[in-house]
Amino acid sequence: MKKHNFSAGPCILPQEVLKQASDAILNFNNDNLSLIEISHRSKPFVAVMSKAIDLVKQLLSVPKGYSVLFLQGGASMEFLMVPLNLMRINGKAVYTNTGVWAKKAIAEAKRLGEVIVVGDSSDTNYSYIPKGYEIPSDADYFHCTSNNTIYGTQMKEFPTSPTLMVCDMSSDIFSRTVNVSEFDIIYAGAQKNMGPAGTTLVIVKNEVLGKTGRNIPTMLDYNTHISKGSMFNTPPVFPIYVSMLTLQWLKDFGGVEAIEKVNQKKADLLYGEIDRNPLFKGTAAKEDRSNMNVCFLLNDSSKEDAFNTLWNAAGISGIKGHRSVGGYRASIYNAMPIESVQVLVKIMKTLEQN
Amino acid sequence: MKKHNFSAGPCILPQEVLKQASDAILNFNNDNLSLIEISHRSKPFVAVMSKAIDLVKQLLSVPKGYSVLFLQGGASMEFLMVPLNLMRINGKAVYTNTGVWAKKAIAEAKRLGEVIVVGDSSDTNYSYIPKGYEIPSDADYFHCTSNNTIYGTQMKEFPTSPTLMVCDMSSDIFSRTVNVSEFDIIYAGAQKNMGPAGTTLVIVKNEVLGKTGRNIPTMLDYNTHISKGSMFNTPPVFPIYVSMLTLQWLKDFGGVEAIEKVNQKKADLLYGEIDRNPLFKGTAAKEDRSNMNVCFLLNDSSKEDAFNTLWNAAGISGIKGHRSVGGYRASIYNAMPIESVQVLVKIMKTLEQN
Repeated sequence: MKKHNFSAGPCILPQEVLKQASDAILNFNNDNLSLIEISHRSKPFVAVMSKAIDLVKQLLSVPKGYSVLFLQGGASMEFLMVPLNLMRINGKAVYTNTGVWAKKAIAEAKRLGEVIVVGDSSDTNYSYIPKGYEIPSDADYFHCTSNNTIYGTQMKEFPTSPTLMVCDMSSDIFSRTVNVSEFDIIYAGAQKNMGPAGTTLVIVKNEVLGKTGRNIPTMLDYNTHISKGSMFNTPPVFPIYVSMLTLQWLKDFGGVEAIEKVNQKKADLLYGEIDRNPLFKGTAAKEDRSNMNVCFLLNDSSKEDAFNTLWNAAGISGIKGHRSVGGYRASIYNAMPIESVQVLVKIMKTLEQN
Repeated sequence: MKKHNFSAGPCILPQEVLKQASDAILNFNNDNLSLIEISHRSKPFVAVMSKAIDLVKQLLSVPKGYSVLFLQGGASMEFLMVPLNLMRINGKAVYTNTGVWAKKAIAEAKRLGEVIVVGDSSDTNYSYIPKGYEIPSDADYFHCTSNNTIYGTQMKEFPTSPTLMVCDMSSDIFSRTVNVSEFDIIYAGAQKNMGPAGTTLVIVKNEVLGKTGRNIPTMLDYNTHISKGSMFNTPPVFPIYVSMLTLQWLKDFGGVEAIEKVNQKKADLLYGEIDRNPLFKGTAAKEDRSNMNVCFLLNDSSKEDAFNTLWNAAGISGIKGHRSVGGYRASIYNAMPIESVQVLVKIMKTLEQN
């Protein structure tokens, strides 16, 4: 039985992408060679990289003057690269603190200079998105996290920033339309809506770079990778290939606008049941609820065993909440069909009826 | 027709590994989920990571007191991490310059402190391995490159170092026995004998770390990854999985000692033909010839078309030399069967006879 995969990441990918990826491991491009045993400088792989970059540009309507990079190291490496590339010596940066990952980004920036935290929801274990803060215009940049996987919160609007605007979109990129021109750097680990773990997408406005006065190590300088088209050194071939396939799948689906509508339907369905069903309650502030990660609790923990038995029997997996929030977390990324959400909702109703 | 894949890297991997990897993309561990859509903290993947680390320890007889890490960023990131982790503030390091990659490692270390180059073969386009140099005992560490893919040279012996010993073994690790206890850090991009591009193996002696007085960024500090068992952040799941499969294949083959004998046979066969056949000549100094990358030229370049037609027709691929050396480069890594080398030798003889 095929599982209903609600894993928070690495997470569900489209079935047809998995099929194509599996085939390419045996015979890529009909050359009787595996994708993973050819040179990254061979024509077939150069075409993959080029297509992946083009698809990002198309799907997000990336304006001219921006570069699209496929790097390594995940968001954690970007926590370092962003301040290295944007924070002037003796400069300062502004961050929101909306969860564990934002906190790590703040800690890394603090090694390089002053950090001002303007919005902080740690007082309620990050159950809401801070709003109404002012961003000092003399800061080098403002950094926010668009979606917080662990707590199930999501920025529904982005503030207007008087300085450079940087966003970690690891867990909701490609799930909804964003206006890239409002941002100077967007970054995202691949392993939610883009592909498997092992590559990091960076979208950067070229003109903001090279102004810090810092001696940036070669591999941590965005300009290194821009100048070499993400081929300065051997790129992570397979994660980039599968990202390209996933982006092509999204394009064929109708693009970000089309998937956004389906994502809204899935979220409405599940949050609707959480609010209706007296056995459950959501953990995030209603207006900040994530359309990617739906966190909820059983009001009566003695019903846990019964609920766990039900969803296990239905082939649901990856639904356990993060240890810092508890309860349940249903991640309903792009590749999750609404049918799987329907199965979960049905089980929640069954628990109520029993 | 299956190709004879002489690619320099990413390069040939064992057929049975490719088959297993392809299967795991569709259904891993019989859980009806893909390897690339499950949490890296799930039991099945934690077991993969643990097995990969154990196999490295077994195959290289890694002594106690060393850690085995699977990181990202390739050797290029290690060019930065090594001096960051070992070079004291106001310290110095000693490097050999044996090719493009060594030169890049030197350039990166120079950003952080003084670098003394004790052996340099750039005078002959790196056609030999420098020897007989002395390593200053007051340096923080000595760095060398064991095999130079582009030029087809290989260190047959390692110098005795009065200071810490670091080696970039990207292109010959697991191809021959090495005494790990003679080294303090060994690192290697996966994409030659270990697996696909996207992960970097680091073997580090724990006690040499934490002594520089530097403020090392979290992701660049080996101790970060040691303390979290290479799971500080989401690891590159697929490249690590395929590395584990390849290391298991090597263990089943009989281990490093067994493959070393086969590698010697393959190299002897090909170098024997290069030396015997009046149409060809090798480019590397005979005593420094690499058993991984065999570089050679046609004495008469007007025979190039005829030779190219012959090897193309035989299904040989990836044999073009690097642009900085020209001619041909046959990479004969662990997974290359001797039968493919025999095909190449036969074609060299055919060209002579025609």
